[in-house]
Amino acid sequence: MYSVMVRDHVMIAHSLKGEVFGPAQRLHGATYVVDVEFKRSDLNADGIVVDIGRAAEVLRRVLTGLNYRNLDEIPAFAGRNTTTEYLARIVFDGLIVAMGRGDFGSEADAVERIRVTLHESHIASASFEGGVSGPE
Amino acid sequence: MYSVMVRDHVMIAHSLKGEVFGPAQRLHGATYVVDVEFKRSDLNADGIVVDIGRAAEVLRRVLTGLNYRNLDEIPAFAGRNTTTEYLARIVFDGLIVAMGRGDFGSEADAVERIRVTLHESHIASASFEGGVSGPE
Amino acid sequence: MYSVMVRDHVMIAHSLKGEVFGPAQRLHGATYVVDVEFKRSDLNADGIVVDIGRAAEVLRRVLTGLNYRNLDEIPAFAGRNTTTEYLARIVFDGLIVAMGRGDFGSEADAVERIRVTLHESHIASASFEGGVSGPE
Amino acid sequence: MYSVMVRDHVMIAHSLKGEVFGPAQRLHGATYVVDVEFKRSDLNADGIVVDIGRAAEVLRRVLTGLNYRNLDEIPAFAGRNTTTEYLARIVFDGLIVAMGRGDFGSEADAVERIRVTLHESHIASASFEGGVSGPE
Amino acid sequence: MYSVMVRDHVMIAHSLKGEVFGPAQRLHGATYVVDVEFKRSDLNADGIVVDIGRAAEVLRRVLTGLNYRNLDEIPAFAGRNTTTEYLARIVFDGLIVAMGRGDFGSEADAVERIRVTLHESHIASASFEGGVSGPE
Amino acid sequence: MYSVMVRDHVMIAHSLKGEVFGPAQRLHGATYVVDVEFKRSDLNADGIVVDIGRAAEVLRRVLTGLNYRNLDEIPAFAGRNTTTEYLARIVFDGLIVAMGRGDFGSEADAVERIRVTLHESHIASASFEGGVSGPE
Repeated sequence: MYSVMVRDHVMIAHSLKGEVFGPAQRLHGATYVVDVEFKRSDLNADGIVVDIGRAAEVLRRVLTGLNYRNLDEIPAFAGRNTTTEYLARIVFDGLIVAMGRGDFGSEADAVERIRVTLHESHIASASFEGGVSGPE
Repeated sequence: MYSVMVRDHVMIAHSLKGEVFGPAQRLHGATYVVDVEFKRSDLNADGIVVDIGRAAEVLRRVLTGLNYRNLDEIPAFAGRNTTTEYLARIVFDGLIVAMGRGDFGSEADAVERIRVTLHESHIASASFEGGVSGPE
Repeated sequence: MYSVMVRDHVMIAHSLKGEVFGPAQRLHGATYVVDVEFKRSDLNADGIVVDIGRAAEVLRRVLTGLNYRNLDEIPAFAGRNTTTEYLARIVFDGLIVAMGRGDFGSEADAVERIRVTLHESHIASASFEGGVSGPE
Repeated sequence: MYSVMVRDHVMIAHSLKGEVFGPAQRLHGATYVVDVEFKRSDLNADGIVVDIGRAAEVLRRVLTGLNYRNLDEIPAFAGRNTTTEYLARIVFDGLIVAMGRGDFGSEADAVERIRVTLHESHIASASFEGGVSGPE
Repeated sequence: MYSVMVRDHVMIAHSLKGEVFGPAQRLHGATYVVDVEFKRSDLNADGIVVDIGRAAEVLRRVLTGLNYRNLDEIPAFAGRNTTTEYLARIVFDGLIVAMGRGDFGSEADAVERIRVTLHESHIASASFEGGVSGPE
Repeated sequence: MYSVMVRDHVMIAHSLKGEVFGPAQRLHGATYVVDVEFKRSDLNADGIVVDIGRAAEVLRRVLTGLNYRNLDEIPAFAGRNTTTEYLARIVFDGLIVAMGRGDFGSEADAVERIRVTLHESHIASASFEGGVSGPE
């Protein structure tokens, strides 16, 4: 299996509901350094997994909906805890939609799996990995 | 698959038996930067894989049995080489025992797999990954 | 010159006032990975710059006043932009006060300079360095 | 599953053919920081996955064929784009050949999978992972 | 002293003349991860050292003259070894010119020193630091 | 000021005397990732601060005296605490002796200062920096 990884980041505010979160129940924030890994079994005719320039642009667009925002005020997240795990899934879902729209170009047709990792500090991160073509 | 990773470290002395280890047959030591990744298919009602605060505390407790010690003097390791690979397994086993005791809280019920990685320097590491519910 | 460095982190929400900040004028947040370096010309009788365990505890206490908070609501920051540069100074000032109170123990008497660096992402950081005994 | 990882690096020049590569169609170069992970189900009698000293030497030898070279002038790469993905595979293939020759020693008999990752910058990397005993 | 750091990277081909360079006398290449640190004694009215967005743009422009190029073919480098040390100075000089032109905006008036570091691998880097207002 | 940095590492066992060290009074160990930075005002005729290959070899030789050893048994350290700070100084002194012997080659004549940093974990390090030509 081949893979390509690109890195970007996003800076957000939010609060988390539930005693398990302790002081993180207060409004605070985070920098998430975001790694996205695209996986496929074979390379395309150019010898790549995906156009890495396009992949970086698509990731940037997906993150723009979150960047410099208070996630508590985004209607799509109402009633949900925007944990690092959950946000990894949100980024994954955004990439899948973009892939379905052809934003990654024709080279991306054969991508099989995507893994999204959000590093929230030097000692903690969360990730979501799934297949491109639907539930597994 | 979702995952959450926490990082800690431990500083130990030990020696390794066998020609393959060269100068590492002498009593020396290591800092292991320890990454533990917890994996499960779905998030719990709070939107998390595991209570990350509790996970960090449990990891700390598991590492306390090794920290600032000469592993050559620990009876449980008698007759064994405490290689980085083997210590990754020891930490894994300690986490499984803690999970069976409920130390991670009820949120941890659905954790399926754990991966433990010990970084021994900027150029070498070892890991063990296994299922929570037994041999695979 | 000898130095010792300890690392910790803090997660905050805030907004910045001024066109220069673009989208960072909105309420957002950051993880700051905080490095503090203590410098002195000679080691003490124990062979150290400062008790690193105490230094880590003092840093933790200084950061607690910021951690998991919306800095826009902290009276001490009213009318100020809590930029990364400015927060590096705030942490520095907190450490100087703690040092004056003797929180670092007697070993810390000879510390001459402190440098505080806040990493806000994998591509940006800010720092403040100053003398312990006053303006230079 | 156990694994051991070793890191090295290589510095090369090359150009890439195809509009998708934009300015990278010009002759340029890269430092690849190379991570190789060896995986097996059980440890050998010494308690290791593979002799890490030998593994580092073998990796060094495999990289020597690429190091400080213009890949455009290497006959084996004629008509191929030496993308990061492709080079990850080339390093993998070189390790498999070395393993078949017994270069890793008898301890390496049970290695099941190898993963090779090439980091081309602080924001991009590519990898290839495959089984040791042939196509999967 | 306050400072702000921004990071970017550049990928180049080149060769080095002189026996001291061994195999690096051949045409090869490098990724340089570039850190630029701006230093000044006091913050401006916005509470910053320099507009970090502008600083990143200026750095990007300075690096564009080098990126994806064979430095052996750039007339300005004729008869010079484009070592990591020398390139750190080239980037520094480019930033000084841009600062003289006002590219950093009025906020940058008080920057006193700039440090440029080029990381060429995980085990080697070089830097140049100098005053903004001329030879020291 | 120009500088060049090289990285290596060493793995040792030791114990520390004094209540301030808590559990580190027991025999334990550490991996020190060692960064050495050489500084000078101007580049030599080859365009370098120091022959980086030679510098890496000299550093390796200096570290060999410590590597895979129990520092408590080295006569030169009798009655001294081999703290990270102190070991940074020991490595510095070893480099100065090697420089006086000409081990760095003629290119090294103009090196003015050396900084040695030992990273003992992902959250702590210590360093010593001094002039090459004697006390400052």
